[in-house]
Amino acid sequence: MIDSATLNSFEAIVGARNTLKAGTDLDRYLHEPRNNYTGQTPMVLKPVDTDEVSRILCLASETATAIVPQGGHTGLAGGAVPNESSNQIVVSLERMNAIREIDPDGNTIIAEAGVVLQSIQDEAARHDLLFPLSLASQGSCQIGGNISTNAGGTGVLAYGNTRDLVLGLEVVLPNGEIWNGLRKLKKDNTGYSLKDLFIGAEGTLGIVTVAVLKLFPLPKSRTAVWAGLPSPDDALALFNFALARAGNSLTGFELIHRTPLEFVLRNVSGRRDPLAQRHEWYVLAEISSGRSEEDANMLAEAIFAEALNRKLIGDAVLSQNEAHRNQLWQLREEMSLAQRPEGASIKHDISVPVHRIPGFIEKANPIIHAICAEARPCIFGHMGDGNLHFNVSQPAGGDREEFLALGEIISKNIYALVVAMSGSISAEHGIGQLKRTLLATTKSKTEIAMMRAIKQAFDPQNIMNPGKLL
Amino acid sequence: MIDSATLNSFEAIVGARNTLKAGTDLDRYLHEPRNNYTGQTPMVLKPVDTDEVSRILCLASETATAIVPQGGHTGLAGGAVPNESSNQIVVSLERMNAIREIDPDGNTIIAEAGVVLQSIQDEAARHDLLFPLSLASQGSCQIGGNISTNAGGTGVLAYGNTRDLVLGLEVVLPNGEIWNGLRKLKKDNTGYSLKDLFIGAEGTLGIVTVAVLKLFPLPKSRTAVWAGLPSPDDALALFNFALARAGNSLTGFELIHRTPLEFVLRNVSGRRDPLAQRHEWYVLAEISSGRSEEDANMLAEAIFAEALNRKLIGDAVLSQNEAHRNQLWQLREEMSLAQRPEGASIKHDISVPVHRIPGFIEKANPIIHAICAEARPCIFGHMGDGNLHFNVSQPAGGDREEFLALGEIISKNIYALVVAMSGSISAEHGIGQLKRTLLATTKSKTEIAMMRAIKQAFDPQNIMNPGKLL
Repeated sequence: MIDSATLNSFEAIVGARNTLKAGTDLDRYLHEPRNNYTGQTPMVLKPVDTDEVSRILCLASETATAIVPQGGHTGLAGGAVPNESSNQIVVSLERMNAIREIDPDGNTIIAEAGVVLQSIQDEAARHDLLFPLSLASQGSCQIGGNISTNAGGTGVLAYGNTRDLVLGLEVVLPNGEIWNGLRKLKKDNTGYSLKDLFIGAEGTLGIVTVAVLKLFPLPKSRTAVWAGLPSPDDALALFNFALARAGNSLTGFELIHRTPLEFVLRNVSGRRDPLAQRHEWYVLAEISSGRSEEDANMLAEAIFAEALNRKLIGDAVLSQNEAHRNQLWQLREEMSLAQRPEGASIKHDISVPVHRIPGFIEKANPIIHAICAEARPCIFGHMGDGNLHFNVSQPAGGDREEFLALGEIISKNIYALVVAMSGSISAEHGIGQLKRTLLATTKSKTEIAMMRAIKQAFDPQNIMNPGKLL
Repeated sequence: MIDSATLNSFEAIVGARNTLKAGTDLDRYLHEPRNNYTGQTPMVLKPVDTDEVSRILCLASETATAIVPQGGHTGLAGGAVPNESSNQIVVSLERMNAIREIDPDGNTIIAEAGVVLQSIQDEAARHDLLFPLSLASQGSCQIGGNISTNAGGTGVLAYGNTRDLVLGLEVVLPNGEIWNGLRKLKKDNTGYSLKDLFIGAEGTLGIVTVAVLKLFPLPKSRTAVWAGLPSPDDALALFNFALARAGNSLTGFELIHRTPLEFVLRNVSGRRDPLAQRHEWYVLAEISSGRSEEDANMLAEAIFAEALNRKLIGDAVLSQNEAHRNQLWQLREEMSLAQRPEGASIKHDISVPVHRIPGFIEKANPIIHAICAEARPCIFGHMGDGNLHFNVSQPAGGDREEFLALGEIISKNIYALVVAMSGSISAEHGIGQLKRTLLATTKSKTEIAMMRAIKQAFDPQNIMNPGKLL
């Protein structure tokens, strides 16, 4: 246990009103959204600036106290939840929530770690600019967490992962030193790319406090297309066709099976099937254009009319206005929530090379059904990035616990398939606590040793988010 | 000195016919293109595969022998040149020159480190695909060197630096272990981004042996535009206007002063000024389109007609066909060579935030002229990336050595300005030997310490390219 003198010293850094102690209502700091991981902590510290974060880590380093950095509590892998020992202090970045600067000439924005993602999007939009990182949890996740998990989402196809959107970082190192890497440069070949080490490191190498982010011109027009088609093979052909025609104007390409659409139609009130007839598979694509207010629609129309002509798709509907576009995307975004009323589910956030998506699905479905004949694969995801949320819902009306007992064997087989197809066991959600053991068994010894060497070099006392990632 | 038994053991790994020894004609392995750095080596080893590279580094590790990896000898910072001690063995990757696979469905290509950049471009083009990395030295530089220096060039604006084009790497570590990170994934959040450590590490952390690279659809049309305008401020306004209109279809944006154009017109036979009247500054822009064979031209015409209308430019010519497009780019690519007949020059590969380019030029020119009133700034570069080649030619007809004696004071002042404007002292050429001292004085102690910690973690004996970068 951390002695009370040490706890008092931590408290003194941020002050009593910015310290929450065990015994008070800490609930929201102690678990992740699905309640799969719950921990304990003697206190939650809420520093207001980089200097306070630095003093916290100095003290942590001196006293070998474990620190768990925390953003918006939306991570799904338990990466921001302390363990149950009450020996880990939570540092919440929520008070470091200022947008320090927006630079419309330079297309950059500087945000503190605790800024909610949507606030950055909104601030950019007020200047006719786009911050393209977009996730279901954007109303509560924080940019520091997005950076520490290299968040993905629906904008990756054209704009990249969070890694691609970060120009510079300020990070407090485990010894309390502050690294000011707040650069706005597109080119900077001056040694090892340090920012890339911290992006996706899940708080195990230091605490990200401030970031310089890239902004883009706000498209003048965006058109969403909901298309029905018979198979993932057709979806792949459509993807390659649309990419060749639209290039970087193709800003979204989601693959959706009929099952998750049915779940939404059944479990969310007021939702309608966008197409008149039933299709086994769907693609939700988006075309964006900076040319004119009509251009996205014209380009989308040309591409999907031709796709229909070539029989790549069975039917399609184009969004007629911004409200309609949002409706189509809403169907996609509600799929995760719409799974809940269908009972237990076993989820896999995986990626394979884009063109192997159809082959993956073709092999994965029989694996599931061999283990549980009535299980319902609920497949949707960012096909354009090779990323599927390969989720499996329990048999309709079946026993919840009975199905969950199959989770280990189902996941083991799915991940084995992922590895056999040169894929990733975590495309965008990270490792956290959830996949820590899996990581060690799916990476080579050489790769694990390299990661450990980096961890050892930066955090020899293992005080930064111990028990996560490695 | 390395003893002869050890040298024999190194030779045995690759065989006598793939070993060049001191005393034979090693000249091309011992200097960089400008002859600014020359070294000595007891032998040049030419491994044919990863296994041989691994055995070389195993032996190097056991015997604490320094290794200098080498690609196409085109680097300008001395990063691939051994020192003068004769204690460093050169490992040339030139025989590892196979393109192992091109995957048109997956838009990837797998190339060994010694493949010449242009061979990759050509192989991609044969499949109607684009590998967008493009440099003046593309006919001889090798992809391993491009990766180890995170090469830039003229395609960065739309497609990113080399870093953004690498999906996966195979690397032999200093202890001879092989890291197989040959992934084809767009999303993979499974721990620290190891590939990003080796990209731009200038061979100081290991030897890159194989890479998986991203390919893109080959544009259906490309139009180059040569525009004359009064000032860098106008060029910035033009850049923002064109970017807002063309988005990612704006695939090139070079800023060029009148002086380097004059050097080309004077020193390269058969070159003509693309515009009828003299302008103080020029922009060479490129518009690419995947939509149709006419689209790039139509879009370029619309944008530059409007720019003329808004008086953002004084005049412009659009390329009428592929040969004309190549002619316009040739003017740009010959600028570096065309400086040579004008006498000595002092060169600076720098970057600042894009919108500060005009301010940088406005401040840098008076600095030069205060030191040497008749010096001729010869400014051109990748404005869209914030990257200028801020070169300074000696006074016309003046004394070469007299001017070069001013190099130190000129560079010192230019780099001080770069640092004051939050820029980079090496935008795309890297550090090598040339800027090693400069690096140490322009980075914070914290940043240098972080880099040293990484180097120490990967290469505790300092056998990988010692004397470079750090």
